Amino acid sequence: MRPLRTILPAFSLLFLVGTPSLAAAQEATAADVLFTVNNLWLLVATFLVFVMHLGFTALEAGLTQAKNTVNILVKNMSIIAIGILTYAIVGFNLMYPGEFGLGGLFGFAGFGVGTDAEGLTAAYDPGFTYWADFIFQAMFAATAATIVSGAVAERIKLEAFLIFSAVYVAFVYPALGSWQWGGGWLDQAGFYDFAGSTIVHSVGGWAALAGVILLGPRLGKYVNGRIQPILGHNLPFAVFGMFLLWFGWFGFNGGSVLSADPGEISFVFVTTAIAAAAGITGALATTWTVHKHPDASMILNGALAGLVGITAGADVVSVLSSVIIGLIAGVIVVFSVMMLDRWKLDDPVGAISVHLTCGVWGTLAVGLFAAEFSLVTQLIGVLSYGAVAFGSAFILFWLIKKTIGLRVSADDERRGLDLSEHNMEAYADFQIFTAR
Amino acid sequence: MRPLRTILPAFSLLFLVGTPSLAAAQEATAADVLFTVNNLWLLVATFLVFVMHLGFTALEAGLTQAKNTVNILVKNMSIIAIGILTYAIVGFNLMYPGEFGLGGLFGFAGFGVGTDAEGLTAAYDPGFTYWADFIFQAMFAATAATIVSGAVAERIKLEAFLIFSAVYVAFVYPALGSWQWGGGWLDQAGFYDFAGSTIVHSVGGWAALAGVILLGPRLGKYVNGRIQPILGHNLPFAVFGMFLLWFGWFGFNGGSVLSADPGEISFVFVTTAIAAAAGITGALATTWTVHKHPDASMILNGALAGLVGITAGADVVSVLSSVIIGLIAGVIVVFSVMMLDRWKLDDPVGAISVHLTCGVWGTLAVGLFAAEFSLVTQLIGVLSYGAVAFGSAFILFWLIKKTIGLRVSADDERRGLDLSEHNMEAYADFQIFTAR
Amino acid sequence: MRPLRTILPAFSLLFLVGTPSLAAAQEATAADVLFTVNNLWLLVATFLVFVMHLGFTALEAGLTQAKNTVNILVKNMSIIAIGILTYAIVGFNLMYPGEFGLGGLFGFAGFGVGTDAEGLTAAYDPGFTYWADFIFQAMFAATAATIVSGAVAERIKLEAFLIFSAVYVAFVYPALGSWQWGGGWLDQAGFYDFAGSTIVHSVGGWAALAGVILLGPRLGKYVNGRIQPILGHNLPFAVFGMFLLWFGWFGFNGGSVLSADPGEISFVFVTTAIAAAAGITGALATTWTVHKHPDASMILNGALAGLVGITAGADVVSVLSSVIIGLIAGVIVVFSVMMLDRWKLDDPVGAISVHLTCGVWGTLAVGLFAAEFSLVTQLIGVLSYGAVAFGSAFILFWLIKKTIGLRVSADDERRGLDLSEHNMEAYADFQIFTAR
Repeated sequence: MRPLRTILPAFSLLFLVGTPSLAAAQEATAADVLFTVNNLWLLVATFLVFVMHLGFTALEAGLTQAKNTVNILVKNMSIIAIGILTYAIVGFNLMYPGEFGLGGLFGFAGFGVGTDAEGLTAAYDPGFTYWADFIFQAMFAATAATIVSGAVAERIKLEAFLIFSAVYVAFVYPALGSWQWGGGWLDQAGFYDFAGSTIVHSVGGWAALAGVILLGPRLGKYVNGRIQPILGHNLPFAVFGMFLLWFGWFGFNGGSVLSADPGEISFVFVTTAIAAAAGITGALATTWTVHKHPDASMILNGALAGLVGITAGADVVSVLSSVIIGLIAGVIVVFSVMMLDRWKLDDPVGAISVHLTCGVWGTLAVGLFAAEFSLVTQLIGVLSYGAVAFGSAFILFWLIKKTIGLRVSADDERRGLDLSEHNMEAYADFQIFTAR
Repeated sequence: MRPLRTILPAFSLLFLVGTPSLAAAQEATAADVLFTVNNLWLLVATFLVFVMHLGFTALEAGLTQAKNTVNILVKNMSIIAIGILTYAIVGFNLMYPGEFGLGGLFGFAGFGVGTDAEGLTAAYDPGFTYWADFIFQAMFAATAATIVSGAVAERIKLEAFLIFSAVYVAFVYPALGSWQWGGGWLDQAGFYDFAGSTIVHSVGGWAALAGVILLGPRLGKYVNGRIQPILGHNLPFAVFGMFLLWFGWFGFNGGSVLSADPGEISFVFVTTAIAAAAGITGALATTWTVHKHPDASMILNGALAGLVGITAGADVVSVLSSVIIGLIAGVIVVFSVMMLDRWKLDDPVGAISVHLTCGVWGTLAVGLFAAEFSLVTQLIGVLSYGAVAFGSAFILFWLIKKTIGLRVSADDERRGLDLSEHNMEAYADFQIFTAR
Repeated sequence: MRPLRTILPAFSLLFLVGTPSLAAAQEATAADVLFTVNNLWLLVATFLVFVMHLGFTALEAGLTQAKNTVNILVKNMSIIAIGILTYAIVGFNLMYPGEFGLGGLFGFAGFGVGTDAEGLTAAYDPGFTYWADFIFQAMFAATAATIVSGAVAERIKLEAFLIFSAVYVAFVYPALGSWQWGGGWLDQAGFYDFAGSTIVHSVGGWAALAGVILLGPRLGKYVNGRIQPILGHNLPFAVFGMFLLWFGWFGFNGGSVLSADPGEISFVFVTTAIAAAAGITGALATTWTVHKHPDASMILNGALAGLVGITAGADVVSVLSSVIIGLIAGVIVVFSVMMLDRWKLDDPVGAISVHLTCGVWGTLAVGLFAAEFSLVTQLIGVLSYGAVAFGSAFILFWLIKKTIGLRVSADDERRGLDLSEHNMEAYADFQIFTAR
């Protein structure tokens, strides 16, 4: 469980200035310095998780068509802004309920008492400052929305996507997060999700699935019962994105230790890197066997699959287990992509397979590989999150569909969203093939 | 004010070897460890600010034409080299004057006394080592020159640009920096510029303005009184650049705390990220309203505008103020770009609007949003920096124009600088449209 | 010498779970906190070195042809996976021999005793955890293999490359590393290679040379005794790669201090950055003089040359020496590239010139610029590493050539490896020129 914040006002955050200051060096105690180090690591983890937004941008741009690139860029820039701002106003206090909260299911932190200059009060001292806690968690919140972005790309209306993201990040993600990280009912039930295989990745993945169902496939993707590949326009971008995501994951998982404890963060670095490496290996072997050719887009998704897979249990499974978890994630992501295509669920970047399928796998793996956790409880957690995340995303997308509409016109889709929604081209000096 | 260095020799730096070493772990005191942590954070901030040079490179390459890309790359690689080397030889000692210096306006540190192995002397102990201080500041110095690069792109002669940069970084930037960070007259007057909205960004921006005036617009940009858009060739690069700049800004602002003080650096992370998010929001709303389409290049400049805007006051304004400062920066950057175009000041990447306009805004905002600072003093600082930075950059560019010349021939400009100055193409395997 | 690990089991790593935990903050001693800081810096250095793999990927993709890009991406993703996994299973214990080892030349750590929760035992306490030690070193190991990748690009069979890499990283690199960093004979002889100019870079470079000799040049590179330039397809990628490599080098060199000692890591940051800056300057001046045009691909290799050059002595040479070492590296890398071409050794990205030529230069420079080390001993180290690295790589490549074959068919090479080996295109929406 992440630390409880007790009596912090929902909006008081906005009026605080965080100024000084530890006692001068000569007077600092070892405990002061340890606080400084723990806080510093949380901030380093914050900028690492921030980079994941660049990673997602590069990945999604690379795996989609050149005629929709500006749209991808605008969506991804907007999401980080929406994520941070809504989390400041609503999400943070919603997720970590205080004593006036409605308990485990839902809660607001209440109003009335601020923090001192260090961002601490007697009631709130988790070993780092309030500000570091907020900005680290805000980067996580924005991640959940950005997962959806790739799956619904190349056909969703910009305003529809922005409205969905704002509501989902402001209310659904933190409410669901509070079940576990806010000390809610699943935390009390013994469910374990270290850094968010379920709470971040599959919560994003379920929303992606709901969006894909309600949007329908891109034009020309499934023709006369046949699957037509629509190729990404820039595979180097996609692979750069994968490396940047892995880079950021050292902060995503490492920062979730919530201190700079040497044994724990070092161990989490090891399992995280090994699961990613095993995920690459699994996907490489699978595509080489199944497709007869090593498929670059599957291999990069294999790395991400391994990372999502290890996220739930990075601190509680053994190194050998991290190899197995990553390897299996790398295999199942390939089959998940094939399955979704067979079911005509068109996900241009494989986001559902990476974040939902492997998020579920990683969460269950905790029950399989860490003796102290129950597979049944893990399954209950997965299903509970799935029901509410998918349900609320579906309702939200459905409401948008019935009001302002979800999807651009067929004509706009054919021309590409860059011209129709942005009146711009991503590559003005190059000849692009848009007719498909 | 940044720490005064007292009796460090201007060139002695070059002959020192910095070897051991804190006492062994068993004997280290809490103060020793705090020193280690503060120093470590300054180095982390250093590598973050370093990445901003990659960010600028990607941004400038993306927002200009494909036929000038190699030239952009060569300029940006050269600048980081020039920045670090001139700062080692001249700039560092010029900026932080010692007791033999000429006082607040200008100063050299003098000659004669070295540091001990830790880079400290009794007279120089700011809480981190001499080496960390130097390399962190050197990354800042290089930033000021790289801001100019984008504004003068696509028409400046390479040698003209390199000479300008070397002189500006070696002498003008540190002399101006010493007014405030070297404990000079503006520092004593109560002027406040936390991490350099004015001292770095607008000092770069004024030089960019001088360069743009003396160079004139690119061929074909203003024809018969009409503004002809010359589109950037790779918008993903530009957006990647923005994300990398934001990433680096955590070090630019966070490192400017000059210690790892938990309350302060965490708070600065929060205001920095929130201002960037608000800048995106401001630019998104403005272009959607004014241009009827969300404009990707404006939105990315909105993020940078928010970042420049918060840089002067990131540690002294409230979180709510950081939202407002960023939002306004995101709005004014759009209008600034439109204005400059109307005045036929051709800035291919919007550098003047981002770094000068929003640098001025951010500096004034300290006077508006932080009660302890005076708007009048802030304005005096802005105008003083403007007069000397613009004046000296103008003279320098003018001297270069009258001697070796500033601008490539019209024919070379049409063919593109890659072929004319470098005899290379950036994209040898692609068909590029160069005729405009 | 890096710390000796005494009785750690070769495979026990795989079954450990690294959980708690320093005593609570109140009870931590200054020594505990210093341990935490040192360990944290090693992990930060780890994620920086990790980014070098993204840097290599971007660099190699950028400097080769668009028709071979997917192949580059797959190779580079595979290498990081292979590097981490083989290092976990074999390499780590092979490189740092314990008391049951075969001594200086070769050694396994033996079997039987695990670590405690912190990854420490009485016999193994180098000032950071076992896990941090492993993951930092694993990133280094993967680097050696990735150096080879660029030199053999555009014609090597994927399976041939993967087999070579796995064996080289699993056995040759750690065995050679143990000579110095495992406390082997060269360490005892007084040889000095701080962060691996020889042990990492030239060990990779020698293998690259062996591969290039056995593979032969790309089709069309040397025709009728004339050198035909085969241009890289994306120079921005190459420059982004250089910046990312430099970024990572702060961890490569800074982390090799193996603690967060303020004086040492700060000094290493300074010499590292200055050598890179000087390398750019050297290559810029050389190509401007020799080729009459500043050559972007040479300038970026100049930066890397400076970085490789300073790697052996970053902590023991003066700042002025780091300028000279970097400058000379930037000059010789240009001539090395020209020489190799004259000898018809076709290295598409200049990897041999950067990593081998400048790795040798940097290692010898320690003997020239640091009074406490002997030029003769440095030369003995260079030659010994050269003989065994080149020899074993040659044998390994030769065995692969005689069995499954090293090189794709001429027809496949002409079509490009993307279509022939992967049945994919990197840039599906763009027109690519593949006929050369």
